[in-house]
Amino acid sequence: MPKEILKCRYCGFESLGNRYYWRCPKCGKPLIITYEDFKAPTISELRRAVSKLSSIWVFSKWLPQVSDMVTLGEGLTPIVRKVLRGVNVYFKLDYLNPTGSFKDRGASLTISKVLSLGLRSVVEDSSGNAGVSITCYGVVAGLSVRVYAPKTSLRSKLDLIRALGGKVVETKDRYEANVKALNGLSENEVYVGHLWNPYFIEGLKTLAYELAIQLGKVLSNETYVLIPTSSGGNLLGCYKGFKEAIEGGVVIDLPKLIAIQAQSPAPIYEGFHNVKLNYEETTLADGLRVKNPPRLNEIINALRESRGGVIIVTDQEILRALKALLKMGFIVEPTSATAYAAFNKLVDDGVLGRGDNVVLVLTGSGLKSINDLLRWCVRQGSYT
Amino acid sequence: MPKEILKCRYCGFESLGNRYYWRCPKCGKPLIITYEDFKAPTISELRRAVSKLSSIWVFSKWLPQVSDMVTLGEGLTPIVRKVLRGVNVYFKLDYLNPTGSFKDRGASLTISKVLSLGLRSVVEDSSGNAGVSITCYGVVAGLSVRVYAPKTSLRSKLDLIRALGGKVVETKDRYEANVKALNGLSENEVYVGHLWNPYFIEGLKTLAYELAIQLGKVLSNETYVLIPTSSGGNLLGCYKGFKEAIEGGVVIDLPKLIAIQAQSPAPIYEGFHNVKLNYEETTLADGLRVKNPPRLNEIINALRESRGGVIIVTDQEILRALKALLKMGFIVEPTSATAYAAFNKLVDDGVLGRGDNVVLVLTGSGLKSINDLLRWCVRQGSYT
Repeated sequence: MPKEILKCRYCGFESLGNRYYWRCPKCGKPLIITYEDFKAPTISELRRAVSKLSSIWVFSKWLPQVSDMVTLGEGLTPIVRKVLRGVNVYFKLDYLNPTGSFKDRGASLTISKVLSLGLRSVVEDSSGNAGVSITCYGVVAGLSVRVYAPKTSLRSKLDLIRALGGKVVETKDRYEANVKALNGLSENEVYVGHLWNPYFIEGLKTLAYELAIQLGKVLSNETYVLIPTSSGGNLLGCYKGFKEAIEGGVVIDLPKLIAIQAQSPAPIYEGFHNVKLNYEETTLADGLRVKNPPRLNEIINALRESRGGVIIVTDQEILRALKALLKMGFIVEPTSATAYAAFNKLVDDGVLGRGDNVVLVLTGSGLKSINDLLRWCVRQGSYT
Repeated sequence: MPKEILKCRYCGFESLGNRYYWRCPKCGKPLIITYEDFKAPTISELRRAVSKLSSIWVFSKWLPQVSDMVTLGEGLTPIVRKVLRGVNVYFKLDYLNPTGSFKDRGASLTISKVLSLGLRSVVEDSSGNAGVSITCYGVVAGLSVRVYAPKTSLRSKLDLIRALGGKVVETKDRYEANVKALNGLSENEVYVGHLWNPYFIEGLKTLAYELAIQLGKVLSNETYVLIPTSSGGNLLGCYKGFKEAIEGGVVIDLPKLIAIQAQSPAPIYEGFHNVKLNYEETTLADGLRVKNPPRLNEIINALRESRGGVIIVTDQEILRALKALLKMGFIVEPTSATAYAAFNKLVDDGVLGRGDNVVLVLTGSGLKSINDLLRWCVRQGSYT
């Protein structure tokens, strides 16, 4: 494993990865991870790695240093290709992760690092999936885990956190979850919130490595990668992973990164276009409720550099997309369906057409909310 | 793809795979699949195949002929190693399949074959997971799907079948589901019930291929492979896959196959030991309710040839195992927990000890039944 450096791009602060910082201790901005001795992956190295079929840790040569790996087989998720409306659509099934969401990539790395540093208690704020994931890995590592989550979270996600042995603190909304998590932090607890956590992004970059192996030359600057985006971890992880894959010669050029948001909150859309929207908050995309992503600037820069953009979708579009995905056999949650809703918009608008390539990242499982799925998706009277 | 032959080992009937038979049309016994032109896989062929990270269809060189592949990214599931009570335990996380169970391997192959043969309607009987899986793949293929399931099935599994667009017929018990599925069959419908279906087993054999790549020389006749077993598809699939992997030089020797059953029904235990038990039926292991497996003889032969056996576990042992697995981060259902319960028995009995190797196949996801998980697993008063 290469030696990582926690770095602040705002004030220049640097620290070796032998202490956990959730943000810059000098200026308070989000940190990123660079390496002292990083050698980018080649295609043959990546292929040899994944043939082990175990977890993101097959990529440990390009991940931060840890002495203990807390793994549940996260990552190495399948890709399914379909031709839809003339477009080559590659569905990346990242909901087939151990706890049912892409967050497991970030949680595995974060908890491994926390454990390696000898820390014992972690605090997270989440609308659900990240809370489940951090709890699951945290409990496996023997840590105590406290999760702040809005009381409007899906009941089944909060139940699962509890069943796994995590402590849930319910808050008024997503914003209060974040504020209370930070304010409630005691001396010996470490805040691993994925909104800030630089290790989380480092785990998430493995998604781009996998896309690089699975898609090879399909990935170019003409390829669209659609990512449901809230605090931006998955998007920034993909951006970083693709950049490294380009450096290693695995990918030719950065694909167009497209952040997908609900109609509200849509801070990335608003920031990217410098507008203020005034829509009602989504009731379906429970994973897209972050109103103040600390890494907003980084996200906008990544979108611009990749010549990508932001798309917002309405709840009605999400519901239609969710039903369509279910008919295709993809049992996902509404947050993931935003990617398919956005795909349809891009085709409707003529941006995507015959022969184009697009990657849809499906981020969260629908199995956690089967009752809701049925309520959302089944026509009245189709029961037997 | 090699050309498959549907074969009856009892009366010698043979048919090329250009017509679907769910059992021998001459003598009524279960069919198996052999090939005209099968060349067993080598280790380098398997490694090259899985580096594509897509689905069981990376093994198509060793699977029956189909013209349409109906795939949702099934298979290529991770393995996690832990040292427990001194034993090297390899957890095969086959619950991380598209619909949350190992059945997807069999369903993908079956539905692909059915579609390739131009058939349009399938009928299945199931306690839940196989019904979800056949429905999901069937609907994706544009088939109509009817599933007979006991009314005591987990509500969430039946709900999911309906949400996916399948028709559920509830029956008194697992036996009646089987009988009614067969009796209710109309001319243009095909019975794909996994209790009989030879293609199902052919899909399931890919699990053994993966274990062969993932474990390599760890697999020997001293290695135990623990498989929750109801109608025996997974066990027979593993048996067949291991035999082929031995033929190709990937595995040295057949590992000891251990079928795990609930305390009741336990027809494999009873058949293997030639006894009659008189316990109460399991209320937890809902996936282990087949009382009359049509392939009982095949199962017993496979167990004997591998110098394996059968273990039965009580509901109390299952519950304890389920809680322990959850603490290890494996979010599974009680049926899967039987494997861990059986592991503990083998250690208690001194059969397994320090340095031994054992594979535990975890077959079904716990995400389908989060509410029950919480009810089963959380101590009173642990809520916040």
